[in-house]
Amino acid sequence: MLSYDGGAYAGWQVQVDTPTVQGALQEALGSVLGEPVRVVGAGRTDAGVHALGQVAHFDDPRGWPAERLVGALNSALPADVRVVGAPEVPAGFHALGDAADKTYAYSLHLSSAAGGRRAVEASVPPLRRRTHLAVRRDLDLSAMRAAAARLVGRRDWTTLSKAMPDGRDTVKTVRAVRLLRGPSSLSVVVTGEGFLYGMVRLLVGLLLDVGAGRRRAGDVEALLEARDRSRAPASLPAHGLCLWMVRYPRAAGDGGRPRRLLS
Amino acid sequence: MLSYDGGAYAGWQVQVDTPTVQGALQEALGSVLGEPVRVVGAGRTDAGVHALGQVAHFDDPRGWPAERLVGALNSALPADVRVVGAPEVPAGFHALGDAADKTYAYSLHLSSAAGGRRAVEASVPPLRRRTHLAVRRDLDLSAMRAAAARLVGRRDWTTLSKAMPDGRDTVKTVRAVRLLRGPSSLSVVVTGEGFLYGMVRLLVGLLLDVGAGRRRAGDVEALLEARDRSRAPASLPAHGLCLWMVRYPRAAGDGGRPRRLLS
Repeated sequence: MLSYDGGAYAGWQVQVDTPTVQGALQEALGSVLGEPVRVVGAGRTDAGVHALGQVAHFDDPRGWPAERLVGALNSALPADVRVVGAPEVPAGFHALGDAADKTYAYSLHLSSAAGGRRAVEASVPPLRRRTHLAVRRDLDLSAMRAAAARLVGRRDWTTLSKAMPDGRDTVKTVRAVRLLRGPSSLSVVVTGEGFLYGMVRLLVGLLLDVGAGRRRAGDVEALLEARDRSRAPASLPAHGLCLWMVRYPRAAGDGGRPRRLLS
Repeated sequence: MLSYDGGAYAGWQVQVDTPTVQGALQEALGSVLGEPVRVVGAGRTDAGVHALGQVAHFDDPRGWPAERLVGALNSALPADVRVVGAPEVPAGFHALGDAADKTYAYSLHLSSAAGGRRAVEASVPPLRRRTHLAVRRDLDLSAMRAAAARLVGRRDWTTLSKAMPDGRDTVKTVRAVRLLRGPSSLSVVVTGEGFLYGMVRLLVGLLLDVGAGRRRAGDVEALLEARDRSRAPASLPAHGLCLWMVRYPRAAGDGGRPRRLLS
C-alpha cells in the first residue's frame, strides 16, 4: 500500500518544478538506491486527490529485503507520502496495465448547519477538513441509492468525463457504486475497471444532484446515453476523493529482472 | 455538533495557561457575547482526544438566532474547533447530567508492514496519522468480537480504569461494543451510559490483547470481576480516540432563562 495526503501535490504524474507524488517517490528512490528509477502508478490521481491504497511498480536494481527498502524509503520521503510494503513481483507485472479494478471513495460530511453554502462549509469538523466535502444532510438517500444502482455496468461515460484527447475509449465497466453511512458522513465508494478523466467526481456530483432533488434517479440512463458533456453535473473538489484500493488478478511474469511493487 | 481535533489541546477541561477545548469555547463565547460564559460539556475528553459529536450547554444572555451565533463563534474559534449548531433548550437541560449515552470510537490502522513496532508505526497512512493507531493486521477478529460481546452490560469496571478519587461509582452500563471494518482499518465503537477515567482506551487495549492472542476472550469476565487495576492491559494513545455522539432523552426544562446547546 502506498498512501498519501494529496493536499500538497499537483497530482500523481511527475512535472518539472512542481511537487507531485510520482516525483517525490522517484526522488526518494533515486537517493536511496543511488540511481534514477522510474515509478509507474496504478492510478494517475489528480491534484489534491488522496490515496490510501495506491500501487506502483519499478524495476529494482538492488534486490534488498523489502523491510530494508521500505524503511529507507519512508526515511527519505516527505511525511505526507508513505510506503507500506515493497514485495517482489515477476518482471512482466505492470501496476497500471494489470490492475483488475480500482476503488475510489468520495467522502461527504452531512452537515446539520442551518444557513447557506458558507455556513455549511464552515461547519466541517476539523478532522474532516482535508478529506470531506460538506453538504446539507437532508439528502434523499433512497433516491441516491436508486441512481447508484443505475450507474453499475458497462457504458459509454462521455457525459461524465472532462475533455480529453480524441480516440480514447470512453466505454468502461463500473462494477459497484456503494453508499456507506457513518456518523454524519456518507462515502460514495466506486469500483470500476477503469475511469475516464474526472469521471468519479462527476459521478458523485450526479448522485448529489439526485439526493438534492435537482435530478431524478430515472433520468440517469438518458443522461449517459446523450454522451453530452454539457449536461454533466458540477464537478466536486478534489480533497474529498481518495484512491482506496487497487486489485490485481494473479500476476503473470515474463522473466527478466524482477520488479518491485510499492504497495 | 461540536467537533474538534484534540491534538493541540490538554483535553476538554479548562486549565490556567494551557490550551483546552472548554477554554477555547469560553474565550470565543466571551468575546462574541461580550460577557463571561461558562460552558458545560457532555464528555470531559482527555488530552489529545478528538470529538466529532461533542455537546455542550451554556446559559445564553443574548438569545440571538442560532445561525448568527454559530457564524460568530466559528469566526472567533481556532480552526481546530467547530460548532455546527446552537439550538435553544429548556433551562433545566444539562449536557452532562441529561445525556442518555455516549459513543466513542477508537480507530486502528491495520498495517501490513513487515518488521517490528517501528516499521508498523512508520506505515500509518498520512491521512490517518492524527486519528489512527497502527497495529499489525493479523488480529484475530472473531476472538475480538467474542470478547467485545462479553463487555456489554452493567458491571464494575475498576479493572479497566485509571486511578481516581475514592467513592466514585465504578459500576457503569456499556450498551454496545461494535467492531467496524474499513479498508485496512478497524474502529472499535463503544456506547455506554458513562465511563470511568481511561476506561475506553483500556477496554480497546484489552480487545487488542485478545486479537493478538495475549489474552483469551473467555478470560474477560474473570478479569473484570477481579477489580484489580494491576491486571489491566496497556492503555492506548489518545489520538486514536474520538467522541462520536451524545444522545439525550426528550429534554425536560424547569423554566427560567433558556439554555443554548452547542451541538
